[in-house]
Order: sequence, then C-alpha cells, then structure tokens
Amino acid sequence: MHAIDSAAIVGLGLIGGSLARDLAARGVRVLGADRERSTVEAAAAEGVVEALAADFAGIEDASVVVLAVPVTETPALVEALAARSCRARLVMDLGSTKRTTVAAAAETPLGDRFVGAHPLAGDHRSGWSASRAGLFSGARVFLSPAPQAGEDAIGLAIELWSAVGAAPEAIEPGEHDRLLARTSHVHQVAATALGLAMAAEGIPRRELGPGGETMTRLAGSSPEMWGAVCADNGPLVGEAVAVLQQQIARLAAALDRGDPEELRALFAGAREWFDGGGRE
Amino acid sequence: MHAIDSAAIVGLGLIGGSLARDLAARGVRVLGADRERSTVEAAAAEGVVEALAADFAGIEDASVVVLAVPVTETPALVEALAARSCRARLVMDLGSTKRTTVAAAAETPLGDRFVGAHPLAGDHRSGWSASRAGLFSGARVFLSPAPQAGEDAIGLAIELWSAVGAAPEAIEPGEHDRLLARTSHVHQVAATALGLAMAAEGIPRRELGPGGETMTRLAGSSPEMWGAVCADNGPLVGEAVAVLQQQIARLAAALDRGDPEELRALFAGAREWFDGGGRE
Repeated sequence: MHAIDSAAIVGLGLIGGSLARDLAARGVRVLGADRERSTVEAAAAEGVVEALAADFAGIEDASVVVLAVPVTETPALVEALAARSCRARLVMDLGSTKRTTVAAAAETPLGDRFVGAHPLAGDHRSGWSASRAGLFSGARVFLSPAPQAGEDAIGLAIELWSAVGAAPEAIEPGEHDRLLARTSHVHQVAATALGLAMAAEGIPRRELGPGGETMTRLAGSSPEMWGAVCADNGPLVGEAVAVLQQQIARLAAALDRGDPEELRALFAGAREWFDGGGRE
Repeated sequence: MHAIDSAAIVGLGLIGGSLARDLAARGVRVLGADRERSTVEAAAAEGVVEALAADFAGIEDASVVVLAVPVTETPALVEALAARSCRARLVMDLGSTKRTTVAAAAETPLGDRFVGAHPLAGDHRSGWSASRAGLFSGARVFLSPAPQAGEDAIGLAIELWSAVGAAPEAIEPGEHDRLLARTSHVHQVAATALGLAMAAEGIPRRELGPGGETMTRLAGSSPEMWGAVCADNGPLVGEAVAVLQQQIARLAAALDRGDPEELRALFAGAREWFDGGGRE
C-alpha cells in the first residue's frame, strides 16, 4: 500500500487485530495499542505490530490512526489524539454505530481527516486470538466521513479498505445507525435474549439442537462492545426491538390459540420474506 | 442392514428423504411415498426408492414403516396403517413432537411396534432437493416408544439409527416435548419473528450483516412442518416464548434507559451462559 507508510491501531480485538494483520501483510508498519498489555505483547511477538507505549508516544506520526475500541470510548480518544497535534492523513474508528462518534470527531481539529468506518465482518468471537488475516475479504464497509473531511482522507479510506478486499460504501451517520439497528443490533439483542432465556430455564448449550445452537451463537459476543453499541444507539435499537416484540406477540397469541392454519400462515410470512431476500 | 429387508417411507422431505438415501445405500429396499407425485418420481429416478402407488398398496409388507410428514398428519396415517393389517416389525414417525403421536399410536394395534423418533438433524432447508446422504451422522436421535412397544421394535429402531451414524437416546414423550419446546421450538419462533419483523420494516435479506443473516436463516424453514409442530406443542412452546419475552423486555427497558453498565451486564449474562454450555 504505497500511500500508507504506517498505521497506528488502538484496540487489537477481532476487528482491530484483523486489520493490523492485513495491513502488516501489505507492508504497512503497524503500531499497536490495547488496554490489555498482554494483547499488545502477543501481537508484537507475532511480528504484526510494534507496541506503542502506554502514553501512546509517537502515535501522532502515523499516517493513519485507527480506533477499534468500544464506541462509548471513541470520542474521548479522538479528543486526546487531537490534543497531541496528530499529523495523520486519516483517522478512522471501526465501531458499529457512527452518529455520536462522527459528530464528536467533527467538533475537533481532526474533523477534516476523520472518516467513521464500519466493516460488516464481526461474529461472536472477540479478542486478538479471534483476529485473522482476510477477515474483510468481500465484506461491506460503511464509510461515514465527518462533514468537513477532505478528499484526501476519504480517498485514503477507500484505498485502505479496497486493499484488504472489502467493498466501501458511503452512508450518512444517522442513516447508518437507523439501518444497523434493524439489520444487526436487533439480531444481537434477540440472540442475547435467547441466551438469557436458556439460562433462566436451566438449559445448557450442549442440549440445543442445530437450530438452537445457530440462534444462540451471538450470545457469546463481547459484552463490552455490545453494551457500548446499545447504549449509543439505544433509541433506534429500542424501536427495532419493539417491532420484534410485536411479531413475537403475534406468534405467542397463535400458539395460545393452537390453530395450525394461523401458525402455518405466520411461518409462511417469514418464509416469504426469506425467499424474497435475494440471498443464497 | 441384515435385520431390515425393506422400509416404506411416507414423506420424502429433508428428513424422510435423507433416511431413504442412507437406507438404500445400505442395501435396504426402500418404498417411497410423498403427497407430491413429482417428489416420488425424482426419488425413484435417482434409484433411491421404488414408488408406492397412491393407495399405498404393498406398504403392509415392509419390515419397517417410517412416517415423515407434518406431525398433525401422523395420527391419521398410523390409523390408516393399522386398518390395513400392517405387518411391519417397526413403525416410526420422525416428527419434532412426540406426545400426541405416540399416544395416538398407542391406541392402535400398532402400538406394540411403534417407536416415535426425532433426529436432531434439521435445518432451514426442506424438501427432497435438500435431502442428502449422511445427514444423521453424529446426530442425536430421541426415541419415544409407545408404552406397549416390544423389545424387538425398540432394538430394531436402535439398530437402524446406529447404522446411519446417529446416537439414539430414549426419552419419555412428554419430557421430549417439554425439552424441545426450549431447545428447538422457541428458537424457530424467534427466527420467524425476526423474519416477520424484517418484512414489517421493509428490510430485505441482502441488507443484513453476518449476524442478522445467521439469526434469520431458520425463517426459511418449512411452514407446513413448523405450523404443525407449534400447533401440537402450543402450550409448551408458549411457555418458552413467554420466558423469551421476559428477557427481551429486560433488554428493551435497559435500551430505553441507555445505561451502558446495565446493558453490558445483560450481554455479560448471556455470554456467561454461552461459555458455560460446554460446547465448541
């Protein structure tokens, strides 16, 4: 990647760690930081990153800075970065919500180089041990630049994500959060609710059939990441959850009546949506 | 399978069709029937089954009869089979509920040879085109014999399932339905509710991220099969759905308050269940 000499990545979990691997494999010098010292040491021992000191000394000289931490922690990090005269051409966060973060970044001197990014590449695994090369291959990546972000920063973000095999797509931050509440966040809430229901019923995971196992896999996701996403996007996720609650209530009423035809029609409605989705 | 000369299978969908393939591959003569004539013709054309006539003539001579139809249709089929002096050593249904079917079979002269069976091998696909050899390899199969079922029938059921690679496990029919409401049926209801919610929101499937795609895959399941299962097991599935509704309500209230710590604790509770499940 001739346009990027060095990248500093703060947060070496599944997403940040995988990006570190992909960039390092393409000859970029990657500086890494993580709140867990053992994570940075593991990433450095594998030759993927050079460890940043605890005070982030030198981060201001990286050509790209990537913040891959829980979304509620991102605004303070952007401010701290702005305060140390960061010289990066591009500053990106990788969180699953964009409105709050991009708005906060736009209030700092880094706004002209800030592009919020959200790669749709997560799964229930988390941490450096789950990170892997090629994670972003074929993945959509939403890009939400700050209003004042320049063409250089936006172009560099597109180049970076394209280089790791992803498909960048511009989206307005509020539209992103509204869409993701429905396409991602409500599904995580449903998996978590199923996990909590299984716990309340005393059903261990090994008792589940293949369908139940699929439906509860996301219950193993990072509580830190998802607590932050749902706190940040609470009202919009709440709207999506309310729609889900209405549909569950319809099914519960049909179960109560025990009418096979009514139940069949509800399952058929979901199947119709499934078949019309154009995938697989 | 030296103990089984011939098997008649009524219903050549994912489960019945896959069993037909596995038995035929082991030298068993398989007679096949399906309400869709084109399905029987396809299975016969592949050399897996010999087509039974529409009046099922000859079914009474098969050493094993397998009923793989929606559970609400099974009791009438068992009665019809009993009325034609079926000589099978073993009659099995493969439905996802067992109480109603086994109780109905126990009321017929076939009760002494009836073993309800439920292989945990389904997924969202359905129909003969989804059937495949080896589907039951490593799968748990619940066996619920009628109270008067003899050792010959039970032994033959165990032999049959072991021969196709499954792990048979005895369970009382009521206990089966109570367990499956929680380990399987409620998960199908959740996937269906998510599919209906996506339809209500106008979100096509191609818009979903990897998590949402996973959580809605079961929305593509057979409406006929699941309408029947949920009609038969309505009260117990309703209880499991009520527990799920309580957990979603807890998450909805936390989303409404937007408290990151409360949300994190809920996600952590589900993760704790996930980690304690002993799988993967």
